[in-house]
Amino acid sequence: MTTDSAPLPTHYDRLTRAQVGEIAGEAVLVIPVGATEQHGPNLPLATDHAICEALVTQAVDTGDFARPVVVAPTLAYGHSEHHLAFAAASLRPATFLAVLNDLIRSAVISGFRRVMIVNGHGGNAELIRLAVTEASNEHDGVFAALSYWDAVTEVPGGKYGVFPGHAGKYEASLLMNVRPDLLDPTTEFTAGEPRGQMQSQIGIGGRALVLRTDDWSATGGWTDDPAGSSAEDGEPYRTAIVAGLQDRITAFCAIPIS
Amino acid sequence: MTTDSAPLPTHYDRLTRAQVGEIAGEAVLVIPVGATEQHGPNLPLATDHAICEALVTQAVDTGDFARPVVVAPTLAYGHSEHHLAFAAASLRPATFLAVLNDLIRSAVISGFRRVMIVNGHGGNAELIRLAVTEASNEHDGVFAALSYWDAVTEVPGGKYGVFPGHAGKYEASLLMNVRPDLLDPTTEFTAGEPRGQMQSQIGIGGRALVLRTDDWSATGGWTDDPAGSSAEDGEPYRTAIVAGLQDRITAFCAIPIS
Amino acid sequence: MTTDSAPLPTHYDRLTRAQVGEIAGEAVLVIPVGATEQHGPNLPLATDHAICEALVTQAVDTGDFARPVVVAPTLAYGHSEHHLAFAAASLRPATFLAVLNDLIRSAVISGFRRVMIVNGHGGNAELIRLAVTEASNEHDGVFAALSYWDAVTEVPGGKYGVFPGHAGKYEASLLMNVRPDLLDPTTEFTAGEPRGQMQSQIGIGGRALVLRTDDWSATGGWTDDPAGSSAEDGEPYRTAIVAGLQDRITAFCAIPIS
Amino acid sequence: MTTDSAPLPTHYDRLTRAQVGEIAGEAVLVIPVGATEQHGPNLPLATDHAICEALVTQAVDTGDFARPVVVAPTLAYGHSEHHLAFAAASLRPATFLAVLNDLIRSAVISGFRRVMIVNGHGGNAELIRLAVTEASNEHDGVFAALSYWDAVTEVPGGKYGVFPGHAGKYEASLLMNVRPDLLDPTTEFTAGEPRGQMQSQIGIGGRALVLRTDDWSATGGWTDDPAGSSAEDGEPYRTAIVAGLQDRITAFCAIPIS
Amino acid sequence: MTTDSAPLPTHYDRLTRAQVGEIAGEAVLVIPVGATEQHGPNLPLATDHAICEALVTQAVDTGDFARPVVVAPTLAYGHSEHHLAFAAASLRPATFLAVLNDLIRSAVISGFRRVMIVNGHGGNAELIRLAVTEASNEHDGVFAALSYWDAVTEVPGGKYGVFPGHAGKYEASLLMNVRPDLLDPTTEFTAGEPRGQMQSQIGIGGRALVLRTDDWSATGGWTDDPAGSSAEDGEPYRTAIVAGLQDRITAFCAIPIS
Amino acid sequence: MTTDSAPLPTHYDRLTRAQVGEIAGEAVLVIPVGATEQHGPNLPLATDHAICEALVTQAVDTGDFARPVVVAPTLAYGHSEHHLAFAAASLRPATFLAVLNDLIRSAVISGFRRVMIVNGHGGNAELIRLAVTEASNEHDGVFAALSYWDAVTEVPGGKYGVFPGHAGKYEASLLMNVRPDLLDPTTEFTAGEPRGQMQSQIGIGGRALVLRTDDWSATGGWTDDPAGSSAEDGEPYRTAIVAGLQDRITAFCAIPIS
Repeated sequence: MTTDSAPLPTHYDRLTRAQVGEIAGEAVLVIPVGATEQHGPNLPLATDHAICEALVTQAVDTGDFARPVVVAPTLAYGHSEHHLAFAAASLRPATFLAVLNDLIRSAVISGFRRVMIVNGHGGNAELIRLAVTEASNEHDGVFAALSYWDAVTEVPGGKYGVFPGHAGKYEASLLMNVRPDLLDPTTEFTAGEPRGQMQSQIGIGGRALVLRTDDWSATGGWTDDPAGSSAEDGEPYRTAIVAGLQDRITAFCAIPIS
Repeated sequence: MTTDSAPLPTHYDRLTRAQVGEIAGEAVLVIPVGATEQHGPNLPLATDHAICEALVTQAVDTGDFARPVVVAPTLAYGHSEHHLAFAAASLRPATFLAVLNDLIRSAVISGFRRVMIVNGHGGNAELIRLAVTEASNEHDGVFAALSYWDAVTEVPGGKYGVFPGHAGKYEASLLMNVRPDLLDPTTEFTAGEPRGQMQSQIGIGGRALVLRTDDWSATGGWTDDPAGSSAEDGEPYRTAIVAGLQDRITAFCAIPIS
Repeated sequence: MTTDSAPLPTHYDRLTRAQVGEIAGEAVLVIPVGATEQHGPNLPLATDHAICEALVTQAVDTGDFARPVVVAPTLAYGHSEHHLAFAAASLRPATFLAVLNDLIRSAVISGFRRVMIVNGHGGNAELIRLAVTEASNEHDGVFAALSYWDAVTEVPGGKYGVFPGHAGKYEASLLMNVRPDLLDPTTEFTAGEPRGQMQSQIGIGGRALVLRTDDWSATGGWTDDPAGSSAEDGEPYRTAIVAGLQDRITAFCAIPIS
Repeated sequence: MTTDSAPLPTHYDRLTRAQVGEIAGEAVLVIPVGATEQHGPNLPLATDHAICEALVTQAVDTGDFARPVVVAPTLAYGHSEHHLAFAAASLRPATFLAVLNDLIRSAVISGFRRVMIVNGHGGNAELIRLAVTEASNEHDGVFAALSYWDAVTEVPGGKYGVFPGHAGKYEASLLMNVRPDLLDPTTEFTAGEPRGQMQSQIGIGGRALVLRTDDWSATGGWTDDPAGSSAEDGEPYRTAIVAGLQDRITAFCAIPIS
Repeated sequence: MTTDSAPLPTHYDRLTRAQVGEIAGEAVLVIPVGATEQHGPNLPLATDHAICEALVTQAVDTGDFARPVVVAPTLAYGHSEHHLAFAAASLRPATFLAVLNDLIRSAVISGFRRVMIVNGHGGNAELIRLAVTEASNEHDGVFAALSYWDAVTEVPGGKYGVFPGHAGKYEASLLMNVRPDLLDPTTEFTAGEPRGQMQSQIGIGGRALVLRTDDWSATGGWTDDPAGSSAEDGEPYRTAIVAGLQDRITAFCAIPIS
Repeated sequence: MTTDSAPLPTHYDRLTRAQVGEIAGEAVLVIPVGATEQHGPNLPLATDHAICEALVTQAVDTGDFARPVVVAPTLAYGHSEHHLAFAAASLRPATFLAVLNDLIRSAVISGFRRVMIVNGHGGNAELIRLAVTEASNEHDGVFAALSYWDAVTEVPGGKYGVFPGHAGKYEASLLMNVRPDLLDPTTEFTAGEPRGQMQSQIGIGGRALVLRTDDWSATGGWTDDPAGSSAEDGEPYRTAIVAGLQDRITAFCAIPIS
């Protein structure tokens, strides 16, 4: 949206109520959600929410959209019950869902008709979709849920494929790239290979979800050795995901609402 | 599991408590879930649960598994809030989830350590995964969630691709094939093409979920013209899905539990 | 209701949405609910829901009512917390109640104004009444709750009185009568007399409900020796209950709604 | 229970914690519950809880029991959603049930193993039974639920039968008898006959519960003309119910707990 | 409010529905809430609700207000989870809050627009404020929450300061004053000094709330030696609080509602 | 805590799981909570959470404590139902409380025994206290709740007293001081005086909470004209509150846990 005056901030909470009132009916509100949970022996608990916030902010700040797009404060806490045996600040599923429901409801009451949740933590994947489903049944508007790794289907130059993994090379590299302050690039990774694969990785074929109790504990809590990660290796991911998010937001802007 | 005596029934509720006690620790309990909701102008409300029950029953009854596999009574009611504008018997998300939680909890208390939910309705997809996630955090065992169309990645001979759609050629053909009693094969389909595509079909690229309020009502409530459906066209789907389910159950039987 | 055209199916889920729309405002929707739980050493877990479904289906299919009467899919799961020490698939009270609330709410949104819950399991008795109470406070219409044994006040020719008992002669005989496929009539009953009476049977006089923790476990889980049961002994019960249900439905049809 | 020292108070809340500790393991805790709701044009909102408290207190204070019996503070608020169109202080069903669950749980934690709920309001009837059912599944002990009119099966000399009715001759007479301070015996009753019978009184035969939306409003909110009520007419009821309650408590005391 | 006819009762539940209808729109409804919980070795469990009820009743009965003021039945049960290790009848926080929400909602539906909760138990202090907050967001009217000790800022002649303490001299003296029937004035107090101060008394400076697990158990469950308490010492408190409550109600009556 | 090695980060989520494991048993976890809500015509929605985070971070980073003190990610969303008529991202009371309960529970499972919630929004004041109360009843440890303005009882040099107000001179000045990036110091304040005082400011004497529906809307949503605010005027507040928080944390560190 081009205006002659100075552009409004892209952070929702930097707006005044008057500015919200001005744009809400036309704008897109993006809500980043992550987690605060163990990421193996070397990565910080912030990994998921820090990456998600960085990617969303870059996508919005560098994008050129047909509508105002504002980013809500990142919800740094997600559903991490499966990491509590190590260390986590976890919201139970019903709590996390209630938070999303309330935030969408608030946005609608405050005038928004387009809300998109962008997620950075595997444990939230079903819950964001559920929140959007409930929203579409209870409020007027259009609602989207997207885990950031689902914004891309290929990552040119990416060394680790598209699947994120947990606390391994992929996440370490991306974190080093987007939030170098959170992990010294000279960190010596002591994790090594995990003790085994989780059943959820092995699977049973098809797209079934399979979970075995305490699989996370049994295998150590990370999916692959983060040693050798680098900010450089994270770059193709950052580039692809930011572009992917921009494409998704652009398409979201284009959906007509009667 | 080979025994000399006559095989036990494959329906969980045909067992006596003694038979349950005999097998629960080793067996797999499969819980089929569906929906009772509008399926366009010509298909019955039973479509989803009837198809799911038929496929699961065939898979279990004709399969050869390393463990006893028993099928619980089909939950004919699912999350169908988005169909209430037409006609549906819908459980709200929290209710449907509570039912699954309770059934898994009951199974665990009754001695089972392997529970698989097989779903036949799109509106339940996230909820079955969530139930299995909660189960793995609260109970000992191994738990799986699978929508039946996720049991296959290709359908040799299938005319309509892999995606199920709603109340169109795919579902009509499969229903005619597995439950011919529910739809006279001479039915004249009056639905015609739907008034448009739902936003959830159009999407915004990537694997984002996008839902617009009242999209189901706006487009009429079905995804493609069911005219021309036939039991024959349903056969490749039946064959592929039954085999796919059997493969998934076989793999599920093989997961070691400490 | 007499029409010239072929009668609609009596199973709610065999209707199309158009057929639902045609009749809902005038029709009665009957929802059978049961349980999946231990029934002593010899009867199957299905006993309660199988009997209830059979009786309701017979009553509706052979009745002649002033309105269309359709039967919803049986809810095979009930409140069976007190049987979990043996084997059961139990919904907690709040879950079971939520299911009933949601089904009635769905029916009302789908156009029904007359809903009757018919129950086949003692553990559900209060909950169906509560669901109907809440319905009458929240929705427009007329709502009824009935355990099938409350449809009769006497059973001419019945050898076991009117009270159903649990997993004894009464239930065994009725099951053999209405669902002979679920229990081989040549079954040798090994249960014998239970180890004692439950406090809920002994009572304290009046119509007080008295429950002692673990009474079910202490006495073995059945109320009287099922040996000697027969399909013939079940016949007077079947006849009386089917007629009783038809009378109740007839009376329910006659209630005026402004 | 006979002791040489002065008897303890029979009101639970007049005890000190030391006195509670002394008796809890052996005693019976009786919890009276009522309602605060409209009782037609002439009776006070207190009718249900005042009658219930009076009857329970008399029964306990004049009874001779094998165990200490103490009466908890009356819960003056019950489930009266169906009277809100007139005037009521109503707890929703889930709230009322939560209160009972919490009170029973508290009693068990405080050492009691015998808890009896005595109810004075029709709208609570299912909920007290449900609370006792849940208690028996979650706590050790023996639990009873009883509406006071279920303590008797006949009332010698009672002019109005056994069924209580609402705000008519029966309740007016009993209130005048047990709580004459709440209603001047010279009150001129202006109610007259109600505008009709509620569907819940007419019924559909058997023991079905039938409720039609707004039936209470439609008929005026009382069941029969209270004119002609008198404290004298209430006396046979008071006598019978107090004796009935004492018999029930005596039987409750006699139940063995392992 | 001056009327020529006899004044209405000041107890809400002594009114008929007609009387409620007459005054509700203009009146103030006061709801006293307390607790049933241990009060050290010598005071009865009733202490909190008995004191609160007595003070509120005196304030209303002897006050001269610009509007009708009626007192609802005292809720004798409060949030006392921290006293369960001794003896208590406690409502969990969510239950207690639900009760208040329901009572306020009922009052509003019954026509009231001014509701004031007066509390006599420390454990309820946040919950009554929360109930009033929710009420103001959900209902039309004006709502107040007040613990009775917050009705005064000084107590002329009071020997124990303004802070109530628990089960010590202050409460014992006030109880002896307002409800002498609950505690024989010749009682020999055996409590003595408590074993220590609770962390919530010591605090960390400022107005922080600090709670250490099992602090109540560790210190014995009372705050100061009740020995030497007397009804005389309670008199300045009674006088000050009754006057304070009257001032608060007077001010509450004066708030304009559009 | 003095260690020879480099100090750990003071942000909880910058720690690795190993670092958490090392300190959790001894450390204090501080959880800042705020709100995202309208702050009059000129201040940004971020005001409450931005101020709270800044003050807590400064207090922890510049303090010298006897234990490790780490700050969890700020919860930027609070209970702001009363601001929804303008613009807010509000969590309902039960949701906000569930979040706090889950975060404390997670912290305890992850090894912490000392958790302090520091709040920056009036609408959360009761809820943080309630969370800490529940924590002390359910978990082992010591728990504190503190709104930052309760960390001080006087503010030397403060021009606006101690009470924070909402979106007036006090908050504007403090925001300009601690987060100058959020509000250009040359902003022209257009708010002016609010249309009136809210009933919650006028009060009824004593410490009663009084809330009138829509008072926020009626008065405009701010408490005093922010014109003339300056970063300089915020300085005495910043200084006093940071010192006050440090004193509270120091005292919290000193509480013995058995």
